[in-house]
Parts: sequence; structure tokens; C-alpha cells
Amino acid sequence: MNATFVLYDQMTALDIIGPYEALAGHPQVRPYFAAARAGSVRCDNGLTLQADVGFDDLPRPDLIVVPGSSRWRRALEDEALIAWLAATCPTAACTVSVCSGSTLLAKAGILAGRPATTHWAVRDVLAAHGAIVSTERVVIDKDVITCAGVSAGIDMALTLAARLWGEPAAKTIQLALEYDPQPPFDSGSPDKAAPEIIAAVRTLLTGA
Amino acid sequence: MNATFVLYDQMTALDIIGPYEALAGHPQVRPYFAAARAGSVRCDNGLTLQADVGFDDLPRPDLIVVPGSSRWRRALEDEALIAWLAATCPTAACTVSVCSGSTLLAKAGILAGRPATTHWAVRDVLAAHGAIVSTERVVIDKDVITCAGVSAGIDMALTLAARLWGEPAAKTIQLALEYDPQPPFDSGSPDKAAPEIIAAVRTLLTGA
Repeated sequence: MNATFVLYDQMTALDIIGPYEALAGHPQVRPYFAAARAGSVRCDNGLTLQADVGFDDLPRPDLIVVPGSSRWRRALEDEALIAWLAATCPTAACTVSVCSGSTLLAKAGILAGRPATTHWAVRDVLAAHGAIVSTERVVIDKDVITCAGVSAGIDMALTLAARLWGEPAAKTIQLALEYDPQPPFDSGSPDKAAPEIIAAVRTLLTGA
Repeated sequence: MNATFVLYDQMTALDIIGPYEALAGHPQVRPYFAAARAGSVRCDNGLTLQADVGFDDLPRPDLIVVPGSSRWRRALEDEALIAWLAATCPTAACTVSVCSGSTLLAKAGILAGRPATTHWAVRDVLAAHGAIVSTERVVIDKDVITCAGVSAGIDMALTLAARLWGEPAAKTIQLALEYDPQPPFDSGSPDKAAPEIIAAVRTLLTGA
């Protein structure tokens, strides 16, 4: 299967690297790292990734992985990206997004009236673009899987791996990644974090 | 603080991206993505990262982050990398490794007789290079922090963030990453996975 990992300027690297690390090593996967144009893509915390291929030169994807960005407003104005998602996602067997990546799918018309999720701080943005917002960590709706912020891409990818290749394959990937999470704090969701922590992150990500 | 994220050919991307995403956005951090020579670095599952600077042109690091590789034998033969680690880690306030990155630190002489950990499948390799191997997920020994395989870098980085900037800052990072892990399976450590899953990963990573 051709798996397209979508890259764009100011994206969040971990959004794509979580699913990439879980999926791209599988012998059935041919990974493509693609952007509107081939070349360097600068992530929102300074790392540069390489887009090996431009959208126009990409073989038809079976799987599309769409990352989010802390500069999600800017990403929503990326017309080349939105147009490509609108044209291509309906032709893929499966489209998945991480974090605010789902707002891009929604703007591309992929999520109209469909259940989906996103980073908790931009749930209203996802709703404003026509999706039915869920607070689940991973939301599966037929050919589209969306998930919560940044690190949720790892949980999503293991779920997808089980659907594609069966539970033993997914468990093998989990053990290879030694994904036995032990966060030192319990502050990973707005249901658990202190109000001042929630306010700090909301300001960081939305300016509100 | 100058934070050097070490890159090398055939490294595992998530090993570096987990800590990067947790640490590089902090206002006190100046991130440097460095390899023996500036330029492209190809990861073990096909993604290309950009090393913006070569080791010779790097300002003195306060923090060094060292990733592992599924091709860890090849990495252990990387003399330029090992020599740089041996010369530079003792000058940094803090050195951290993810996954088999600790075997590189051990080969560089940084871990002789010191407690450390690594990916579960290469614990014997770490021991053979002189470290006292722990099975904890994150091991702190004065200026050196090592952690378990791949995804453990996120747990390690949150622990480090709390030491550097205090618990509220670390909890803010955790919430920004929405790191409220919900793995769909419980197969993330050799204590939990089925024997045939353990055997499959061991073969994949060690050929044994």
C-alpha cells in the first residue's frame, strides 16, 4: 500500500512521526513524504523535514496521514494543501489525521456532518467547519480516522495497524516501540489538568 | 540553553522527535539539529531529516539528546559520532538518550559503572559496554538520563522538563501534547507482551 505522509510548513513534527514510526516500517507499506512541492519543510518547533515528492508526482495513495500545527490558522489558509486533500482523500482507502489536521480535512469538505475529533483546544474550530465533534481520543468513521492532539497519533496508528494487519501485528509494533507509557504527571487532557494549566495551553494555541 | 538534537544516518525518528516536541518549544531552549556533517539524514523507516549544523560548527551544548536506531550495530561503528559524544557529553550540563542511544553513550565511555537503560531488546549490548542495566523506563544518574525504547522519550522529556523548569511547566507541555495515552493493547513491554510477540520483535531488532 502507498502511504502518503503529508508535510507542510509549520506543521507539528510529532503529529506525523508517531504514525510514521508505527506504520512505515511494515513490509506492506511504501511510505511517501509529500508536500505541495518537493523540498524542505520547516516544522513549528524548528526541525526541518524533507518532502521527497510534490503532490503532482505522487502515486495514488491508499493511506493519507495528515498532521496538525500549532499555527493551525495559517494551515487553514494553505489553499494548495486544502485543494489536494479535497481532491485526493475521497480516492484513498483510508485518510487519518492527528491533532488539528482534522480541521484541514473539515475545510476540505471531507468531514461535513461526520463524527471527528481534534486537539482539545480547537474543537470549536472543527465544529465551525461542519464536523460533529467527539471528545474521544480516536474516532473512526468508515474511511476516515481522526484523533486528539499530537501524541494521540501513536494510539491512532496502533488502532489502524490492527485493522489493516490484525492484532498480533499491532502488538508487535507496540512492543517494538516499547509503548508502555508512564507519564510522570496526569495532566494530559483538559479533564485532568488544573485550570491554570488549561488556560496557559489555550492561550498558547489559540491566543484566547 | 543550547539543546543539541543529535542526528545520524539510520536513526529512529521518533526517538528524537518525542523529546524535541516536548522541549524545543520552550522559550529558554535554542534547538540545534546536528550531525557529523550538515545535510540530510535518512532515518531507518525512510524519512529524511535535515541536520542544520555539523558537530564542528555547533555552539557548546547545555543539553544533548541522543536517539537510538533499529540498526544499532551500524550506529556503534560510527566513529565520528562516538568520538564527538565522548568529547562533548562531559562538557554538557545534561545528556539524555532514548532507546539504543544509550549504547552509543556507553561505547563513548560515558556510562562506565553507571546505572542506565535502553530498548529492552538490547539490554545485553548496553551491559557489554559497561553500564549497570536497569529495567526502569527512565533512569536518572546525575547529569545523564537514559530511557527505554522509542516512545519512552516522551516520558523522559516530561521528567526532564520538570527538573529544568518545574512541574507546572512540564504539565503545560503534557497538556499541549495531549499526552493522555490510551494504547489500544497492553503489549508495550516484555513484561506484558505474549512470548511470540517478544520473539518477533527480538528477531526484528537483533536477528536472534
